[in-house]
Amino acid sequence: MKIVIVGGVAAGMSAAARARRLDESAEIVVLERGEHVSFAGCGLPYHVGGEIGSADALLVQTPASLQAALRLDVRTRHNVVGLDADARTVRVRTPDGEQAIGYDALVLAPGAQAVLGFDSPRVRTLRTVPDAVTIRGWVDAGARRAVVLGAGFIGLEAAEQLAAAGVAVDLVERADHVLPPLEPELAILVREELTRLGVTVHESTSATAVTPAESGADRDVVVLSDGARLEADLVVLSVGVRPDTAVFAAAGVATERGAIVVDEHGHTNLPHVWAAGDAIVSTDAVTGARRPVPLAGPANRAGRLVADAILRPETARPIPAAVGTAVVRVGRLAAGLTGANRESLVRAGISHHTLHLHPTQHAGWFPGATQVHLVVHVGQDGRLLGGQAVGADGVDKRLDVLATAIRAGLGAEDLIDLDLAYAPPFGAAKDPINLAGMVAGNVLDGTLRLWHAADLDEVMASALVLDVRSRQEFATGSIPGSLNIPHTELRERLEEVREAAAGRPVRVTCQSGVRAHIAHRVLTHAGFDSASLSGGMLTLRAALGSPAADRLTRADAPAKEPVR
Amino acid sequence: MKIVIVGGVAAGMSAAARARRLDESAEIVVLERGEHVSFAGCGLPYHVGGEIGSADALLVQTPASLQAALRLDVRTRHNVVGLDADARTVRVRTPDGEQAIGYDALVLAPGAQAVLGFDSPRVRTLRTVPDAVTIRGWVDAGARRAVVLGAGFIGLEAAEQLAAAGVAVDLVERADHVLPPLEPELAILVREELTRLGVTVHESTSATAVTPAESGADRDVVVLSDGARLEADLVVLSVGVRPDTAVFAAAGVATERGAIVVDEHGHTNLPHVWAAGDAIVSTDAVTGARRPVPLAGPANRAGRLVADAILRPETARPIPAAVGTAVVRVGRLAAGLTGANRESLVRAGISHHTLHLHPTQHAGWFPGATQVHLVVHVGQDGRLLGGQAVGADGVDKRLDVLATAIRAGLGAEDLIDLDLAYAPPFGAAKDPINLAGMVAGNVLDGTLRLWHAADLDEVMASALVLDVRSRQEFATGSIPGSLNIPHTELRERLEEVREAAAGRPVRVTCQSGVRAHIAHRVLTHAGFDSASLSGGMLTLRAALGSPAADRLTRADAPAKEPVR
Repeated sequence: MKIVIVGGVAAGMSAAARARRLDESAEIVVLERGEHVSFAGCGLPYHVGGEIGSADALLVQTPASLQAALRLDVRTRHNVVGLDADARTVRVRTPDGEQAIGYDALVLAPGAQAVLGFDSPRVRTLRTVPDAVTIRGWVDAGARRAVVLGAGFIGLEAAEQLAAAGVAVDLVERADHVLPPLEPELAILVREELTRLGVTVHESTSATAVTPAESGADRDVVVLSDGARLEADLVVLSVGVRPDTAVFAAAGVATERGAIVVDEHGHTNLPHVWAAGDAIVSTDAVTGARRPVPLAGPANRAGRLVADAILRPETARPIPAAVGTAVVRVGRLAAGLTGANRESLVRAGISHHTLHLHPTQHAGWFPGATQVHLVVHVGQDGRLLGGQAVGADGVDKRLDVLATAIRAGLGAEDLIDLDLAYAPPFGAAKDPINLAGMVAGNVLDGTLRLWHAADLDEVMASALVLDVRSRQEFATGSIPGSLNIPHTELRERLEEVREAAAGRPVRVTCQSGVRAHIAHRVLTHAGFDSASLSGGMLTLRAALGSPAADRLTRADAPAKEPVR
Repeated sequence: MKIVIVGGVAAGMSAAARARRLDESAEIVVLERGEHVSFAGCGLPYHVGGEIGSADALLVQTPASLQAALRLDVRTRHNVVGLDADARTVRVRTPDGEQAIGYDALVLAPGAQAVLGFDSPRVRTLRTVPDAVTIRGWVDAGARRAVVLGAGFIGLEAAEQLAAAGVAVDLVERADHVLPPLEPELAILVREELTRLGVTVHESTSATAVTPAESGADRDVVVLSDGARLEADLVVLSVGVRPDTAVFAAAGVATERGAIVVDEHGHTNLPHVWAAGDAIVSTDAVTGARRPVPLAGPANRAGRLVADAILRPETARPIPAAVGTAVVRVGRLAAGLTGANRESLVRAGISHHTLHLHPTQHAGWFPGATQVHLVVHVGQDGRLLGGQAVGADGVDKRLDVLATAIRAGLGAEDLIDLDLAYAPPFGAAKDPINLAGMVAGNVLDGTLRLWHAADLDEVMASALVLDVRSRQEFATGSIPGSLNIPHTELRERLEEVREAAAGRPVRVTCQSGVRAHIAHRVLTHAGFDSASLSGGMLTLRAALGSPAADRLTRADAPAKEPVR
């Protein structure tokens, strides 16, 4: 059995290593176009900023170490330029010329290519070890200004690292907020952290041209769609990737918008040809949408499962649908998501509730408590559809629990029942995840009715806004026209609410949603048409964006309520 | 509707608060024997050591705040001394005398009482805010020596905190290792950390007497079962708890070994009487064993569900079986477990595999990588039965993922497919949890065959031990009689193995189990009867305990292998 694997990083190398562990006698050849195999692609930004000091640390394995440990025949600088499925051969271009290599089983793991667009020696993607070494070299040589194009995961890491290295960074994102997969009401926290780190953020903006430095200018100039011109000693291009599949599509491998189509065992439409990794179409576990998922974890695991499919087809597990969990560290924050986000749910036509919570990552009375800002999407049928989190601590843990719950098909209410590890330094007797389940349950059974920041205009036009925070909190800014009655006084002051509402519905808010829920229950019992603002003022401020203060009143005197 | 709740901490106060949110018109009375309600019981040890500076921080709510926010009638120093289920009344002893209080629904959440046994003013349990304030007062007043009896979760926290406050601590545990629910091969890491913190650990030992300080002696003397006599300015007693149910059992509430028996909605055998919290019998989700589970999280959630059962019985969710997740911080380490441990599996007659892994908590090439020591129990049928973890970072996260997977009924192999959040600071492309799933899958389908540290004597007597670490690692200590062939040389040196084995089975080891698995596959393919040591030398050393070095050879010269 001769197994030829195209691509020697995540999916390809996982397939190769697993194949050897399953079959000591197979001939296993790995063809890698680049200089390195099995390198730590996710670590590249951290070399740019020096957090990973030596590039050698990124080279997890070498062809020699893989030969020694696993007897893999790993060939770098071997670029596959043709496939003849009938003859079972690939054509390979090497520094020494072209050759044909035959196979019994072929695994395509070519990965994705960065989307390019600008031609300057100082514009560089961040996809390979030489990329990272080159950019780091520019920094060491005195680069002072950088432009990062694209504020996705890699772009954010690059911006954070360049800023940490003392470089002035402009970060440019075409979407209306950084980290586009995140909901905007969470992404604003990331943007604020970037600002704190000294990064200048340009949203709803893209680069239209890059003028290379010439004899007359010391720096490249990046021209933005809003007309701004940014000087740059270096430009990091991270605006997206596309599956690197042209050679294989030309040879008859079925693709869908450029990505290779496979069955649940990674088999392509061609006999003896499998594929895995960033170049294949995945089915989304929540929405059923089909798209490539360029993430290291799923690629590694799919590669492994393809080896199983080739060598022990009768017992191989299927490659699972994609839950699509991702996280990024930005300064003091972590931000991430799992499952579907609002946009993908809307696109898939899945009606849902969205919950916002701001619990602390561990018991509030234990030193170091800090908020985890959570967004959870719950289907009308109770399905847990997706979750997002931003905060300084405990974010990755909550994402992992949600990811596990989504994979397991738990309902949102099932989150109530999770026995999560609690001691004061680590969590709370009611963990943020349990709380999310409780809120979901309340919403699903009608105990809690939510209104959302997006409803603000309509609410202000047609309802009484009741703010149940303390007078001190209310004085820090409130929704114009809102009535302030602290939740502890509400039961005694219901007549005031009735008068102020004058037949209109009452829409309650507090700081994070907890007290508003109590007030909502009191109001509902008293016969009011009531609803509670999801996530309270914290979410409202975030959803309104940076000019939020423009929409909120700074109450100089709590005139609407008598002093008691 | 008048709801009377006995006990105002975790389960009781959760039931009360939920009842109010569900029913604005109910009369809700909470009867608490102690001075405080809704206090942070899990925070008490941290006040002893000063990490929580003010005891006020532990008083999360007061009767006044609960009246204001939720209109709860909370009565402290109200000790329920009788129950007449026919008359629907409880008899209550208060500072002002006894009274009878009627109810429509009664919730019993009396909690558990510490097991006592020694009579000295300087012996104190750590169950209430006054306990914590008193012990802290002793420390502030100059206590220099403390004995902590019981090395369970609270005992460990107390020992850690007292040591941090500069007190010399002796920690005494009757079981053969600290943190008895943990497997001994993990608990030894906790013991080593305690030693590093300056705590003197006494295992397999209990106190037989405490002689109070008298005019002739400045300190109490704690006499141990091994004859040792420990001087103590203070003694913390944390040797266990028992349900505080005598009053209710006497009134006809059905109990099982002292714990109240309830149905899945928390209803007792008596009409109109429910119960929740540390005083009730829970059914273990994995083994089916019935026992009280004195944990804050499940108590809080069960209290909430009991309120649902009383006020909206038709839609109330059942109280789930207990997964029993717990964690503790000890110095730089976290240690915890979820699901069943080896002892409970053996007792329940559930045959299982046990896996040991030592992966790093995040990508090994990212700064700050540190090992998470994992033990995972997997049923012969593939069920995920339990997991344990010890390490300096990322422990609580892995416990939570395992707890979620157990609650969801995932198989151990399903852990492979979890899309966990990966970025270099937070995890790895193959997270430790994914790796545990991969090892489980390999064991279940026979790709990997394990041997265990407990088999060492038998293996040494009847097999060739093949150590596939490098020469340098081998030289740091090895199993006597083992043959050292680095895994990278094994394929070329199989004849040496065959000669040395002389027909015996080959039992492979390496540092953590990864390389031994590769070697096992090579050997199996070559026709050997082979198995790989679960967790490698790291687990072997831990399982052998502190005198492990006695069983291992320090190889001065790698005489058995030629230098190449």
